[in-house]
Amino acid sequence: MAQETVRECFKEPAQDITQLVQALRVFAAERDWAPYHSPKNLAAALSVEAAELLEHFQWLTEAQSRSLAPVKKAEVAAEAADVFLYLLQLCDQLDIDLIQAARLKMVVNAVKYPAP
Amino acid sequence: MAQETVRECFKEPAQDITQLVQALRVFAAERDWAPYHSPKNLAAALSVEAAELLEHFQWLTEAQSRSLAPVKKAEVAAEAADVFLYLLQLCDQLDIDLIQAARLKMVVNAVKYPAP
Amino acid sequence: MAQETVRECFKEPAQDITQLVQALRVFAAERDWAPYHSPKNLAAALSVEAAELLEHFQWLTEAQSRSLAPVKKAEVAAEAADVFLYLLQLCDQLDIDLIQAARLKMVVNAVKYPAP
Amino acid sequence: MAQETVRECFKEPAQDITQLVQALRVFAAERDWAPYHSPKNLAAALSVEAAELLEHFQWLTEAQSRSLAPVKKAEVAAEAADVFLYLLQLCDQLDIDLIQAARLKMVVNAVKYPAP
Repeated sequence: MAQETVRECFKEPAQDITQLVQALRVFAAERDWAPYHSPKNLAAALSVEAAELLEHFQWLTEAQSRSLAPVKKAEVAAEAADVFLYLLQLCDQLDIDLIQAARLKMVVNAVKYPAP
Repeated sequence: MAQETVRECFKEPAQDITQLVQALRVFAAERDWAPYHSPKNLAAALSVEAAELLEHFQWLTEAQSRSLAPVKKAEVAAEAADVFLYLLQLCDQLDIDLIQAARLKMVVNAVKYPAP
Repeated sequence: MAQETVRECFKEPAQDITQLVQALRVFAAERDWAPYHSPKNLAAALSVEAAELLEHFQWLTEAQSRSLAPVKKAEVAAEAADVFLYLLQLCDQLDIDLIQAARLKMVVNAVKYPAP
Repeated sequence: MAQETVRECFKEPAQDITQLVQALRVFAAERDWAPYHSPKNLAAALSVEAAELLEHFQWLTEAQSRSLAPVKKAEVAAEAADVFLYLLQLCDQLDIDLIQAARLKMVVNAVKYPAP
């Protein structure tokens, strides 16, 4: 892919999520991963990455999980990124606006769990 | 895309995500959920929500997963939102910049999976 | 199959599972893992292993998943074993008779999903 | 425990599990579920059920998870059964001897994690 094309993707000061989605589209297209990225497969990959994130905490106490060592925190950040990248690709495939869906869900939760 | 190009892609700071994180902080504070929101517990909740998302696809063919009915798509969007909201709260608790972590992971992936 | 038929299928007591549970108790005791094996932690570990099992199938088509190569099948068997071993330890910690619970659940399912 | 000791623990052949597998085969056949029960789908269903099991513990402290109320314990037992039933069906589809795989994995673990 030409550098110009990539710069083209990120020329406008778009929202940061939109930039990531654009980059993920180019990344997958360059590797011909489209056939593998069905929503069903992406949902499975998302679930697998979420488990890899959980794995870092499974034997820790809640207290220990609140004070991770720098190296451990970096590993957790990398797993959180994997979860996020698959979530963005799944929503992109299904044409779901993740930010809008999150805002709507918070409104729903505010009704479901009234503040004291 | 090359590492340099990917890095080139990302400049602007997160914006809409910061808004969601702020809202989630207020939401949890109003309900005194802080004691429950240890990174360990949030990682478990994230994994559980990711599985609820996967549940919508487990018996579908990949083709069916690419063409969801409107109602089904709305349910999937709500589950994707749950995953996202827990991911944001986990990163907030650990002081992880999700957007930055995602950008870094894409650079790492560009090295790990070279484009043809 | 009717409830009576399902019940009819089950007569003998569990044996091989009891052996595994006994071995797992000795194994954990020798390594002083009791403090880590709370039901909460074992449930997380079980979920993590189930995802590692799923990881082997995430990019395969359903057809490919039906005809695994010998090496792949051996890796899947090892992951299935991990899931099973954590499930047995979780049930042991909670004093749950897994075989009995499975038999009961099949009776419940026979009522929930009537045969045509 | 030494490899020999682990092997010593296992003699009798699987019996109660074989009964469950037979019952599951009849159950699925009567409902024509074979087309849905690809290893890929069963692995996803297994992961989803493992998460439903974890969901019961996500907000509990480890101490609370060690002393579940009777009703809660019954719900956990039902979820554990779901995980087990899908695990048995997955292994049946792949012609994997779960008990044998578990015994082998314990021998491997005995080597991987030497007793003090």
